[in-house]
This record gives sequence, C-alpha cells and structure tokens, in this order.
Amino acid sequence: MLHLYDLKNAVVVIIDVFRATSTIASVLKNGAKCIIPVDTVAKAIEISKSIDAIAAGERDGQIAEGLQHGNSPLEYSREFIEGKTLVLTTTNGTKLLHMALDNNADTIITGSFPNLSSVCKFLVAQNKNVVLGCAGWKDRYNIEDTLFAGAVISKIKEHFTIHCDSSFTAELLYENNKNDLMGFAPNLTHYHRLVDRFGLIEDIGFCLTPDVADVLVLYSEGKLITG
Amino acid sequence: MLHLYDLKNAVVVIIDVFRATSTIASVLKNGAKCIIPVDTVAKAIEISKSIDAIAAGERDGQIAEGLQHGNSPLEYSREFIEGKTLVLTTTNGTKLLHMALDNNADTIITGSFPNLSSVCKFLVAQNKNVVLGCAGWKDRYNIEDTLFAGAVISKIKEHFTIHCDSSFTAELLYENNKNDLMGFAPNLTHYHRLVDRFGLIEDIGFCLTPDVADVLVLYSEGKLITG
Repeated sequence: MLHLYDLKNAVVVIIDVFRATSTIASVLKNGAKCIIPVDTVAKAIEISKSIDAIAAGERDGQIAEGLQHGNSPLEYSREFIEGKTLVLTTTNGTKLLHMALDNNADTIITGSFPNLSSVCKFLVAQNKNVVLGCAGWKDRYNIEDTLFAGAVISKIKEHFTIHCDSSFTAELLYENNKNDLMGFAPNLTHYHRLVDRFGLIEDIGFCLTPDVADVLVLYSEGKLITG
Repeated sequence: MLHLYDLKNAVVVIIDVFRATSTIASVLKNGAKCIIPVDTVAKAIEISKSIDAIAAGERDGQIAEGLQHGNSPLEYSREFIEGKTLVLTTTNGTKLLHMALDNNADTIITGSFPNLSSVCKFLVAQNKNVVLGCAGWKDRYNIEDTLFAGAVISKIKEHFTIHCDSSFTAELLYENNKNDLMGFAPNLTHYHRLVDRFGLIEDIGFCLTPDVADVLVLYSEGKLITG
C-alpha cells in the first residue's frame, strides 16, 4: 500500500513485529555494527561471504534453507553479535523496505515494541509526515503490526494531524489490549504459527515487550544502523 | 486484495457502505426490476439508452458529470424506481465487483447495514466459504466497510471457522460501537467528505441503520437482483 502515499517528505516506519523488526532492534542493541537487509537467501550468503559477515534469515517462520542463523531476537546475544555485521533476509519486512525505497521515502526507520520509545521520540523530533508501514503476512493484514502502529499513534498523536481511518482502528486495537499484550496474543494467527508449530513463546514475549531493546534503527545507504 | 483468496467455492460479499451497496439495497427494496453495475459513466449512459433504463452514478461523492441521478439511497423512492432498471456506476464498489468476477467467485452478493439480516441469513444457509470484501476508498482501508464486516462476523461467526486477523479487528470495531453507530460516525473520514462538503447527514443515517431495506441482493449474469 505504500505506493498510495507521498513519501518524499515522510518518515516511513517499517513494522514487522513477528519478528524481523524486533530482531533488528535486538541485534543492534547488542552491539552489532550494522545489518544489511536483502531480499533473497542467495544474496544473504553471497554478501556475507564477501565481507565476512553473518548470514541469517527465515522463510515461513523457520531458519531459511542454506543458512545457520534465523530471525529470532533471542539468537543474537551481545557475546555473539557485538561488533559484527549481520546480513538478514526476511519474508515480509524486507519487501516493505524495498517498497519504501522505490517510492523515495525521505527517511526510513524500523519499529517494534522492543524499541517503541526510540521510534516515538524520533518521530516527534523530526516534525515530518509519518507513514506507519505494517508489513503484514504475505500481503495480508495482521494484528501485531497494526497493534504496534496503534501504540505509536496512542503515544504521539497530539503532535500530528491524522488523515486516515486505519489509524483510528489501530489505536482502538492497542487501547483495548495494551494492559495485557501477552494475554491478547493467542488471538493472533501468527502466534499460532510461531508457538504451536515452533514453540517460540519466548520470542513472542520479547517481541511484545516495550523497550527491551530501545535503540533507534535508521536505514542508511543499504544498511540498518543505530541512529 | 480479493486476488489473494480462493473464491471458487466462496460467497463474496461486496461491501461499500457509503453508499453504493446501501443504495443498491434501497433501490431493490423499492421494487426496481434490477440494477446493472458498470465501471464508467459512458457505459452507464450508453446502456441506459439502449434498454430504456435510468443511468446513475457518482464520482467523489457527487452525481457524476453527464448523469441526472446519483448514489443516494434516498433518491430512489418506490414511486420513482418501481419496475424500472437502474444502470449504476460507482467509484469503489464496482471495482471490487469486477475483482470478484475476475477471480471466479462462486456467488456474489452485496452487503450493507440496510440489508444486514438478509446477508447473514443467506451466508448461514449457503454453508460455503465466505469472503467479506470491503471496497474501501481509493484502494485504502475505511472504517465503515470494516464495521459492516464486523457486524456480519459478530452475528454469524458461530457457524464458521475464521482464518484471518482482519476478522478479529473488524468484530472489535463493531462490538465497540454497535450501540451508537451514528454517534461513532464522525470518527470516519468519509463522514466528513459526505456531511461537511455535501450535507448528506440523512444518507449517513440510512446507511448505518440495520435492516431498513432488508432484501437479499444477488449478482447474476451482469445484473443485481433480489434473491
């Protein structure tokens, strides 16, 4: 949907709560030098070899074939990732990032509950238009990304004029569930994909906890870096 | 989004609450023979001349240039429309109808608050998959169509298994606001387009009142007819 919006004077927030943008916050919080987002596993492997980086990524919730590291925020401890470069390919978030680039977004950051406060502070300080880009799941709506968009709207809306119906619904979703995000999580289809099939309940917990990896993540010249 | 779903064994409900599908229910409730939905004003004029029908339609909330009749449910009294054929072109609803046709939907009906009960009864009786197709506004999400989808889900969900996150959010939106839809309406961007610019508050009232034109509307061989 990003092509419907004029992004030239806008900050675009890429949101992929389960789990790409939560993992990105975790990796950078734990001291990685940068993350290079790519759209294919082949590119992840190729680039990681050429610059001595770690290749990682998932397809359909699992570590992608040919890779040793996946898309869990808990895989990337400081001991493992500090000072290193991660080349990351994910299903939905990377696609949205490229849509933002193709539509000439002024500024691109990534957002997730783990770095909620940094996102909010940055958006208020920038004083530009804001587009909250929910990655969703295979081009479909999902609740968790909208929930995070609602959290951002709830916290900073007094600084902005809101022009769309989706913001209202996102805020309603967040306000109705903000006091018990983990209790609410079983209502999400993606929860069942991750927990029932892969047992990733701890990942869900991390991804729904505000500010556990509170860094600003900026996209700059092909890399995601700490802002 | 309809292309993402397998429609071959599905009933697709075309939803365009403000105002196409509400007007369609009103027109058929008041005894029109049928409605022929078309995508352009030129086609509406051409077909209406060739079969001695009434051409009608809107663009951006107003009667379309070259037409004498618009997209208000209140324009079509029984005295005016009974026994006649209406050729109707609208902005968003017609587009969605053609997407349903292109994707080989098994059955297509239209839905709106004015014919809510007929829609629900039909869907339960059919015992097929159901796709609730929200027309939105210029390819964007809008609240009113999702609100109606939520009403349908709320009333008949015990007969179905729900597979998507958007259904949950739609139902939440409806449950939170069902007791005062008119009081809620000023939160909708489209409310302001229709009321502030064109004074169409009575249209809004009609379009948000359940069962005031409670007919089943079926699409069959190029025509919308009473089922």
